[in-house]
Amino acid sequence: MNGAASLVQTLVNCGVEVCFTNPGTSEMHFVAALDDVEGMRCVLGLFEGVVSGAADGYARIARKPAATLLHLGPGFGNAFANVHNAKKARVGMVNIVGDHATYHLQYETPLNSDIEGIVGTVSHWVRSSESPAALSTDAAQAAQAAHHGQIATLILPADVSWSEDAAPPMAMPDIAPPRRVQSDTIEAIKNLLARGEPTLLLVGGGEITQKASLLLSKIGEHTGARVCVETFPVRVARGEGTGQLERLPYLAEMAYQHLGGLNHIVLVGALEPISFFAYPHIQSKLVPEGCELHTLSTPGDDLEDCLERLIDALGCADVAPRCSVRATLEAPTGDLTPLTVAQSISRSLPSQTIVVDDGATSSLPIYALTEAAPAHDWLSLTGGAIGFGIPNAIGAAIAAPERKVLCLAGDGSAMYTNQALWTIAREQLDVTVVVFSNHKYNILEIEFARTGARGGKPGPNAAAMLDLGQPNLDFVSMATGMGIQASRAATASEFDAQFADAMAQRGPRLIEAMVPPVKLG
Amino acid sequence: MNGAASLVQTLVNCGVEVCFTNPGTSEMHFVAALDDVEGMRCVLGLFEGVVSGAADGYARIARKPAATLLHLGPGFGNAFANVHNAKKARVGMVNIVGDHATYHLQYETPLNSDIEGIVGTVSHWVRSSESPAALSTDAAQAAQAAHHGQIATLILPADVSWSEDAAPPMAMPDIAPPRRVQSDTIEAIKNLLARGEPTLLLVGGGEITQKASLLLSKIGEHTGARVCVETFPVRVARGEGTGQLERLPYLAEMAYQHLGGLNHIVLVGALEPISFFAYPHIQSKLVPEGCELHTLSTPGDDLEDCLERLIDALGCADVAPRCSVRATLEAPTGDLTPLTVAQSISRSLPSQTIVVDDGATSSLPIYALTEAAPAHDWLSLTGGAIGFGIPNAIGAAIAAPERKVLCLAGDGSAMYTNQALWTIAREQLDVTVVVFSNHKYNILEIEFARTGARGGKPGPNAAAMLDLGQPNLDFVSMATGMGIQASRAATASEFDAQFADAMAQRGPRLIEAMVPPVKLG
Repeated sequence: MNGAASLVQTLVNCGVEVCFTNPGTSEMHFVAALDDVEGMRCVLGLFEGVVSGAADGYARIARKPAATLLHLGPGFGNAFANVHNAKKARVGMVNIVGDHATYHLQYETPLNSDIEGIVGTVSHWVRSSESPAALSTDAAQAAQAAHHGQIATLILPADVSWSEDAAPPMAMPDIAPPRRVQSDTIEAIKNLLARGEPTLLLVGGGEITQKASLLLSKIGEHTGARVCVETFPVRVARGEGTGQLERLPYLAEMAYQHLGGLNHIVLVGALEPISFFAYPHIQSKLVPEGCELHTLSTPGDDLEDCLERLIDALGCADVAPRCSVRATLEAPTGDLTPLTVAQSISRSLPSQTIVVDDGATSSLPIYALTEAAPAHDWLSLTGGAIGFGIPNAIGAAIAAPERKVLCLAGDGSAMYTNQALWTIAREQLDVTVVVFSNHKYNILEIEFARTGARGGKPGPNAAAMLDLGQPNLDFVSMATGMGIQASRAATASEFDAQFADAMAQRGPRLIEAMVPPVKLG
Repeated sequence: MNGAASLVQTLVNCGVEVCFTNPGTSEMHFVAALDDVEGMRCVLGLFEGVVSGAADGYARIARKPAATLLHLGPGFGNAFANVHNAKKARVGMVNIVGDHATYHLQYETPLNSDIEGIVGTVSHWVRSSESPAALSTDAAQAAQAAHHGQIATLILPADVSWSEDAAPPMAMPDIAPPRRVQSDTIEAIKNLLARGEPTLLLVGGGEITQKASLLLSKIGEHTGARVCVETFPVRVARGEGTGQLERLPYLAEMAYQHLGGLNHIVLVGALEPISFFAYPHIQSKLVPEGCELHTLSTPGDDLEDCLERLIDALGCADVAPRCSVRATLEAPTGDLTPLTVAQSISRSLPSQTIVVDDGATSSLPIYALTEAAPAHDWLSLTGGAIGFGIPNAIGAAIAAPERKVLCLAGDGSAMYTNQALWTIAREQLDVTVVVFSNHKYNILEIEFARTGARGGKPGPNAAAMLDLGQPNLDFVSMATGMGIQASRAATASEFDAQFADAMAQRGPRLIEAMVPPVKLG
């Protein structure tokens, strides 16, 4: 058995059963091994940012890691942004980065680069497997780290991959269960909540299941504390039958208001709330002066367990949670806007849909109105690097083939990794992509004003850098060119009909929604 | 004057007059400054790999650096592959990477990352400008490094950018001329060449001008030495009226043959020839056993000067060089193949065209047949990271608006950075993109066989990873969707007519050439 086969078999043994790939010459033995080892599904992406984004989406839904197969330093560079997003989500993945043969690295060749340097900046776990004897052990450790939510990157020299004297595959290593929160922490938070002062639970740092949302809502109903999800939740169960949770606004100005008047903020997995960016006249910390911060749990802690124990301590197991209820909105008419898109989505979203949100400004009303939609999961852009959505949707769809996936993408975001559309077509995934065509980096128009640059009013050169028009992008043509059934909606009723149609059938779809830019103030 | 304005003015003062951008919030003051400072042309790319590739192409043609404007670590990650390609070409650029405000970096926020780590892996010069007093000095030093062919990356914290107490702009620093080769080196090579033993001059490491090609050819004609360009020349003048130079083949097997029987190889800017990749049964070093390596010049040396002095030493100034001559090939008919594409290109290429080659297997016959074309410059993929071509063509066209730019792109390569088509349309650049649609990673099919993996025959899973079909990509639809006039050629005569038409008019064009994959052996 050569190194590549031992590696692939080890990954399969360790529960890593999907590999998103964009291989090159140095990875050919790994690719060959896919026909010698059973149990590894391989999915090709036409750019490495597609590959890493798909691994993120897969892990968020499957609750276990996928692998990526990348070609030397530049291949990892291309994957970097979506690895960064996954890292911020604390979502694990195993990156296999092919490298030159060990004896070839001494030479100056076009593709050699500081691979360890670049992967090290965004990986928790890095190893270059320099010997076929160590490869399967290394791979099992990488898988273990990924199961623990880490970015694990295994650098695979070509000669180690093709070597015939590889050690046999390894079995699944121990995977630690989520940490349990200490009892005195739960007791302290119980006592705090019992005081009845103005308090908010800020929840995040990982998945919020339907069960967790209901537990959180019980606590809120019983104690009077508000319960709020962080601005960009990794994965949160929402809609009909879930516990109603607030969401912390993105804009610092609005976040201050949202947190105003509180005496206490209890961090439940979430980190201290901080403004996404710095601005000349806005402070970074969002916690109001005089408001105390407390920590119930940190990322990686067992959320459901700690909430159940807190509920036991509070004695509120029988309190009814405040659930979101289904409300079918009326069919929107007139001009198409982000709000009418939100109405249509709320109307027609199938139960158990996975919503992947890379929609920037246009997505804001959708989050609000889908509270009244059937139960669904919402995945957010956790690392701020746009181009996450369509790739992420691929992974989500592969993890849950029975569920509809809806990807919301800004036109600027969609262009970053538009190649992902082809993989959706090739794999015939049940993904509908809604692209918001407002012909702007709309968020940057808003941010330009917020930074106060040049009095908040861009001159002609600056305006051109925020503009996606001239020429306008035609996503219907682009999607069609990648094999996706696509349509354009210019009115609210056109979108409503097209969206309902897409939700009623299975398979790849793209709808270009011709919405106006969002204006603030 | 704020930091951003002082920075932009310093760049302009230092001869950095084009900035390829994809900004975010932290770069808004830089963007604003584009309307306060004259002389900086700003060009938007819809992905950072477009931006860095364009900066590379600009510098190769303008012989001076451009700037890029990138958004924090993920923005640089997206730019990484084409920065890598530029670094391997020894082409300088100034990367401005916006960062959070200095006081904001202490917080965990979605976009913070190890920016210094990632930029450091591919930059010669890195500085984080932590004070408005130092910013213009830092910028001038970055520009100086870039003029010297270095990747210079200036990290720009938002508060340094918006600070109103910036130091005034700096003037152009000293730019060192190319190094002169020492006289005793020239004397030694003269003596070697005078021996008349089987010798090859391997030329590369930077631009090979028409003048240099003629000087090299004189030396070859006079001494009997062969003259050969490295496999992937940064920029080489070719076609009618240039000195005829061989090219070292990409495939190691063919490169051994090419270098067989030599007693001496003289490196003229080029590095020792090494196989691009390692393979199980192929040695890395391409220099035949017993063949001696000598060095006339190294990258960064003044090539024309050293060749003129060598000619003086040899006393062959009056020897006639062997020039490429124009030969108009017959119009091809029948099936469209890379060879018939090559015939058509050779027939219709306008004089002074800039050819950017990201065409992988399909480009091979084009290089050969364009020796008989009018004079042109050929730019190669120097770092092996595909997706270089269309972005590079943008920069070349902006550097030389009066010249036609022809980009050759494999379908796999074109998909990597297809967003670049939009910038070509927006800027109405005189670029024709020929995409070779063979629905394969054709090079990987060849490489799979060469690595000997699984007996050289991919199984079904492996074959799927090398295949771009199912569904086939439709580049006409994609290009049309980005505002580019596009057509498809399925026969040799269709391509011949479409290509002649594209060459006869100005402005953006794309031709999808439906060629079969190249087979070896």
